Amino acid sequence: QIDSSRLWDTIHTTAQFGGTPKGGVRRLTLSAEDKQVRDWFRAACEDAGLEVGIDTLGNMFALRKGRDMTKPPIGLGSHLDTQPTGGKFDGILGTLAALEVVRTLNDAGIETELPLCITNWTNEEGSRFAPAMMGSAAFVGDFTVDDVLSRKDAAGISVAEALDGIGYRGDKPVGAQPFSGFIELHIEQGPILEAEGKTIGVVEHGQGVLWYDGKITGFESHAGSTPMHLRRDALATLSEIVLAVEKIATELGPNAVGTVGEAVIASPSRNVIPGEIAFNIDMRSADAAILQQLDQRLRAAVAEIAPRRKVEVTLDLVWRKEPTHFDQKLVGAVETAAGALGYSNRRITSGAGHDACNLNARIPTAMIFVPCKDGISHNELEDATQPDCAAGANVLLHTVLSLAGV
Amino acid sequence: QIDSSRLWDTIHTTAQFGGTPKGGVRRLTLSAEDKQVRDWFRAACEDAGLEVGIDTLGNMFALRKGRDMTKPPIGLGSHLDTQPTGGKFDGILGTLAALEVVRTLNDAGIETELPLCITNWTNEEGSRFAPAMMGSAAFVGDFTVDDVLSRKDAAGISVAEALDGIGYRGDKPVGAQPFSGFIELHIEQGPILEAEGKTIGVVEHGQGVLWYDGKITGFESHAGSTPMHLRRDALATLSEIVLAVEKIATELGPNAVGTVGEAVIASPSRNVIPGEIAFNIDMRSADAAILQQLDQRLRAAVAEIAPRRKVEVTLDLVWRKEPTHFDQKLVGAVETAAGALGYSNRRITSGAGHDACNLNARIPTAMIFVPCKDGISHNELEDATQPDCAAGANVLLHTVLSLAGV
Ligand SMILES: NC(=O)NCCC(=O)O
Ligand SMILES: NC(=O)NCCC(=O)O
Repeated sequence: QIDSSRLWDTIHTTAQFGGTPKGGVRRLTLSAEDKQVRDWFRAACEDAGLEVGIDTLGNMFALRKGRDMTKPPIGLGSHLDTQPTGGKFDGILGTLAALEVVRTLNDAGIETELPLCITNWTNEEGSRFAPAMMGSAAFVGDFTVDDVLSRKDAAGISVAEALDGIGYRGDKPVGAQPFSGFIELHIEQGPILEAEGKTIGVVEHGQGVLWYDGKITGFESHAGSTPMHLRRDALATLSEIVLAVEKIATELGPNAVGTVGEAVIASPSRNVIPGEIAFNIDMRSADAAILQQLDQRLRAAVAEIAPRRKVEVTLDLVWRKEPTHFDQKLVGAVETAAGALGYSNRRITSGAGHDACNLNARIPTAMIFVPCKDGISHNELEDATQPDCAAGANVLLHTVLSLAGV
Repeated sequence: QIDSSRLWDTIHTTAQFGGTPKGGVRRLTLSAEDKQVRDWFRAACEDAGLEVGIDTLGNMFALRKGRDMTKPPIGLGSHLDTQPTGGKFDGILGTLAALEVVRTLNDAGIETELPLCITNWTNEEGSRFAPAMMGSAAFVGDFTVDDVLSRKDAAGISVAEALDGIGYRGDKPVGAQPFSGFIELHIEQGPILEAEGKTIGVVEHGQGVLWYDGKITGFESHAGSTPMHLRRDALATLSEIVLAVEKIATELGPNAVGTVGEAVIASPSRNVIPGEIAFNIDMRSADAAILQQLDQRLRAAVAEIAPRRKVEVTLDLVWRKEPTHFDQKLVGAVETAAGALGYSNRRITSGAGHDACNLNARIPTAMIFVPCKDGISHNELEDATQPDCAAGANVLLHTVLSLAGV
């Protein structure tokens, strides 16, 4: 059994780095706050006797020796970055629970057959730089390292500059660390476990994701003197697109979602008809055929709206990820551990993307979910209970032990 | 006859102050660029023998003596501030044509019976600070000076601070300058004169205006894991409001317009459902009854949308201006001058708001319009021809002479 209060303490200790007045965390990837938590995490891993390596994208790997050092380690961990108005648990629980697992093994003097490797992946959130789960995506070769290093945030700062800025461009080649398997613990970020009174979600699938960058070019004109029928209004166009995204996802649901999360009017003014808007779209489904339909119906909607409104709309698919189906052997190992520990559990599909979804393409991978309050995430009010976090960490411990061997 | 090339030259000389690569002007009220053009304008007025006074809101008054100094002057002028991506003519033509009128009288050695007073009103555009036509509104007492001084821009800078920042908080009390009448020349900012091949618009009416500040409070949540039916999406709500504004204005048209010009998502992120949006609405009609209906139907639409989407929407009416009906004697004087000079003309209603609309409440006022290319304004592509600008300035000259007496 892990030490529940020690885990809870580390969560609240690290929540200071970027902590917000509303009790959330603002710790954008590769920011000064991210450096603070990374420095803390590195020191804590070293204190636990781990050897910390950092790759050229800032992904962190903390190795605990096993009896058989010829075999690749079992990986466990998540991410420490957050949304601009994020919570204390998303990613953080999985990373700190991995540390707690190692501390527990240390205290009990347990050596595993295979080595263990705790990870903290760079830019899981995808808020400052697109795409999300960037570090793990490059790790499995979905993107080249150079491509990722050149991605820019809204202020024009590249990933390379941001890494250098906080001193986390390491020397390990990206993708060089081998793994025998990987387990990620995470809050559910959805309402199902809580609603059904289950403690553990045994994650079987992950949604596929479509991310688009869009731009609307209409025509700026005087709000008072331009007759309604002569307008080429970029915001009215965006409004139709937003409602189309909502309608398409609802109609293709319940196994589909669609969101416009960002939209910025260029040179806005109260009495000027908006002429240019940059926006983006996030659409998801766990079903590959539905994901395909989301894309087709979105493009059809835009193709109908733009000419009717005499505006230009560009839509770039900047990220496409097919649905994830986790490794059945590892999914079974999670289920067995949860059952053996006596936790109520069910199989579940992840609505959010996770580093584990990327890793699964190259490494046998599975995930453990614990409930979060009202299913709320990506919000400063995100919450989870200490017993649920401890339960998740215990399932992580026992799954890892079953995979690494004692 | 005024000097067409001299007028054209002054327009292009001042277009440097805040000139943009696309040939437009970015000269937000009370900015460094506004100070440049004000300094130029003050010097040019003094060179023309005028005495320049500035009131505590930065409104500029340049007095040319008349034979009878016991009578209040005839006012002529407009504004020199622009939209963020504005043109070279909106406001500027009227102010520089007034200067050209005085230069022409000086050259011809003509003394008028009544004195003349050229004005440059502060913050006509309303883009940096709301409401528009702020300087003339306070001049006629629609707002108190203290209220106006406390208004803030998006960066939190008040009108008072901005005035002090460029050294244009003058010592003349606001509203103290008397006028016997006021004439403002302006580009039409709409397509009618050009479409009908008329050179001069004799402005009879101005639209009434409603300006609202709005805020939508939904709930931030994860774009991937929040089911469609559980969302409280602030952007989807805004989208319905934008389309409702468009529909209401179209249905109550052709004598009505409605626009959402600004909308800003708080803490936006690609994979977060927007939780909070600040926006504003501009609705107008030249018909007081329709203006009333615009307000009622907008409020009814919001009252239906907000609870259905389980979000909170606040709507503050920050400015309401009833339709303007210009002084019939002065409207007639403009029409007579245009006819006598042989310019084709028609009576017209202004779609845009103007300082003249405010002044009309206390001073007999009228306006002269000249065509602008494709009716485009509040756009860097805003354009007008040299002959049309000169025609407008000539009508201004002759109207002023008829009112001031030779
Ligand atoms: N787990 C999580 O919130 N990941 C962020 C990436 C995404 O799913 O949008
Ligand atoms: N003339 C003009 O564009 N005024 C700006 C104020 C408004 O009408 O919105």
